[in-house]
Amino acid sequence: MNKLVSSALALFHADAQMRAADVAEALGRLSPVAAAAGLSKLPPDKAVAALDRPEFADAGLALAALPVDRAAALLRDMSADRAADSLAEMSDEDRARLLAALSPDVREALGRLLDWPEDSAGGMMTTEYVAVPCTATVSDTLRHIRAIERTRETIYSIYIIEPQGETLIGTVSLRRLVTADPAEAVMTLTRGRVPVSIAPDASRDEAARLIRRHDLLAVPVVDAQNRMLGIVTVDDVLDAIVEAQTERAQRFGGVEALDRPYLDTGFATMIKKRAGWLCALFLSEMLTASAMQHFEGELERAITLTLFIPLIMSSGGNSGSQATSLIIRALALGQVRLRDWWRVALRELPAGLVLGAILGVVGVARITLWQQLGFYDYGVHWALIALTVGSGLVGIVTFGSLAGSMLPFLLQRLGFDPASASAPFVATLVDVTGLIIYFSIALVILSGTLL
Amino acid sequence: MNKLVSSALALFHADAQMRAADVAEALGRLSPVAAAAGLSKLPPDKAVAALDRPEFADAGLALAALPVDRAAALLRDMSADRAADSLAEMSDEDRARLLAALSPDVREALGRLLDWPEDSAGGMMTTEYVAVPCTATVSDTLRHIRAIERTRETIYSIYIIEPQGETLIGTVSLRRLVTADPAEAVMTLTRGRVPVSIAPDASRDEAARLIRRHDLLAVPVVDAQNRMLGIVTVDDVLDAIVEAQTERAQRFGGVEALDRPYLDTGFATMIKKRAGWLCALFLSEMLTASAMQHFEGELERAITLTLFIPLIMSSGGNSGSQATSLIIRALALGQVRLRDWWRVALRELPAGLVLGAILGVVGVARITLWQQLGFYDYGVHWALIALTVGSGLVGIVTFGSLAGSMLPFLLQRLGFDPASASAPFVATLVDVTGLIIYFSIALVILSGTLL
Repeated sequence: MNKLVSSALALFHADAQMRAADVAEALGRLSPVAAAAGLSKLPPDKAVAALDRPEFADAGLALAALPVDRAAALLRDMSADRAADSLAEMSDEDRARLLAALSPDVREALGRLLDWPEDSAGGMMTTEYVAVPCTATVSDTLRHIRAIERTRETIYSIYIIEPQGETLIGTVSLRRLVTADPAEAVMTLTRGRVPVSIAPDASRDEAARLIRRHDLLAVPVVDAQNRMLGIVTVDDVLDAIVEAQTERAQRFGGVEALDRPYLDTGFATMIKKRAGWLCALFLSEMLTASAMQHFEGELERAITLTLFIPLIMSSGGNSGSQATSLIIRALALGQVRLRDWWRVALRELPAGLVLGAILGVVGVARITLWQQLGFYDYGVHWALIALTVGSGLVGIVTFGSLAGSMLPFLLQRLGFDPASASAPFVATLVDVTGLIIYFSIALVILSGTLL
Repeated sequence: MNKLVSSALALFHADAQMRAADVAEALGRLSPVAAAAGLSKLPPDKAVAALDRPEFADAGLALAALPVDRAAALLRDMSADRAADSLAEMSDEDRARLLAALSPDVREALGRLLDWPEDSAGGMMTTEYVAVPCTATVSDTLRHIRAIERTRETIYSIYIIEPQGETLIGTVSLRRLVTADPAEAVMTLTRGRVPVSIAPDASRDEAARLIRRHDLLAVPVVDAQNRMLGIVTVDDVLDAIVEAQTERAQRFGGVEALDRPYLDTGFATMIKKRAGWLCALFLSEMLTASAMQHFEGELERAITLTLFIPLIMSSGGNSGSQATSLIIRALALGQVRLRDWWRVALRELPAGLVLGAILGVVGVARITLWQQLGFYDYGVHWALIALTVGSGLVGIVTFGSLAGSMLPFLLQRLGFDPASASAPFVATLVDVTGLIIYFSIALVILSGTLL
């Protein structure tokens, strides 16, 4: 066990101020075997507190490295959602071995959480919520809360269910309970409001949207028959959002999402996460060389045209990257839906034309200035070259804006995350087409003179 | 007033289920004058509920368009943080006029919130928290909470202060209070823990980090003397994070952050938000044309070199964009600090070399294959050209990774948000240098043969 952990553990024992998060983080930096050794040095309640923290990376692998009885005891005491996440991380064998060592009711509860993908509401939910029958009074409810408080993730939202069928019929906050008359029926506190709820297969973005929109501390997850399955709490949503933000930022930059902090990621992992995309983009970008080979004759006759290739290509990539980032966010926030693609296209087409025209005017001005001021001689046909560059910019920026805005829709339609459309991906897509647009325009404008 | 709003308002009256958020959103889509007209049709408590929602865009401008007495009454009843945000949106005159119409204590409270920048903990905080003296018992505290509950943003975190000086000495959750013995002193529930707190000038990222790390529902904001100034609640942090995520995603794509949803943004605004960056990048990218003009002689003698320019430039841009996105996130999450720049450089240098070597090998293989299989004839010196392309890729990918990773540090050092380093910005930075690296390597390898 390395120095970092032993000192963290020493601190944990010595000082109640040492937060579980710090111990969790230190243990998460170790190999699973070393983390398991660290866990067995801790008293059970502290081990559970550390395992319950999202900072404990690969907690499931550490649990799998412990003796099965000890691991099962820890899993039983962990919060249900973290226990399910840890089980999901293990190999199928380890998971089966541990599930078999749990009591039937715990196994069943965890099994229900394991049914849903990690980034769905069902995958984020916990089963440790407070529910009372609709016949309860305020004082019944408060008494119930006091009795079960220790085993619940949150007690600030209380769910009112029908005694038969467990259908959700209302929610009430602890805030309202503590200020209410103890003799009142708990149902009257809901003022007849239909509770906000979410389906287990809804996305984490949707859970975040509901929690934000209705200022909730937790949103109940219900099945098609409106039966309570669990709750998604605001702190899990916050963690999920920050994690998603990191993943998306990295993917938009063209990197596979890192599982650990930058400086904790091993060199080989770092290369692996980056080389894949870099090679894929490189191979696609090779089409630019093929496109240029195709126009080799034109290139030799009008070498001046090559001077503007980087400028024109990058403008297409930039406008595409702008459009893509706008649409990815609009889709994630639910501001734009798949069926709105044509409304977006109808905005991006004129936007691309205007932006292309602005750049085109700047480009023509640049060539004219350089020619007239004698900075560079583009030859007798300089005006036609300026026209080619200007028109090329209009065409390429328009194509970039359109392609960049449609790509996230296409990805979503095909069942991928629209956020997989990275800036380098868009740039590559636009580069090859951009070259073809540029040379085609050149052929039209310059044929008979330079070409 | 348009149809959208009148129907929203009608619903609001007719049905208690109509959420304030929907009304707020409908009003936020209107011009300030129309939104003010909508507000005056609502009963005061509904108007306040709508104004309190972050979905109400430009709420401050709508308030400024109301008669001053009516606006002052609404401001007084709004939550303090939203009221301060609304005041911050107004012109200086409107703000002064409205502040003058408020009672001295409300004016002073709002004035304290206006002192801090919008994206700092001070700018996000509210003054409506529950505080009790350290001499209180549990039942005193519960009685106090019941008395003031309506005027507080959250009652789930209770702050224990010294009666003299208002120094924060402890926090206790409502959860703990309702399960405790009523006769117990509230201080004993803190178990001697030093409360987590934040300075008013700390960033919203830092507030989010603390709330996530310690699973808080609110973090207290204290001054240098540890006196309570306010609290930042988890729902404000969630809103701020989602907003920041959108802003950053748009900026990384090279767009100025939009203030409104994509489809609600006017065409002219959309062009303005995109044209600025696009032109700035275009002007910088013009340096590529200048660099190519400088190497014109070499270009004419070895036209084959131009075939690989897009390929090589884009690889530099892609590796730079990867490194930038990784470092921006690591800085935002506090995983890397400004002083770690050299540790990052020491990782990116070898990473860039390895990634460049991988692409270099692929590039050399491509040229060799095409030459040997007869797809294209790169001339007698094809092997030297392949060597130039391969070495160029190593140089450019290394430079891209280094420059891309150092740029966010440089921006932070200069006082900018490191997230202003957009993918197009990095690509442009790397493009010009990439061309110079490529041609310099070509001069060394090909001089005496092609050049």
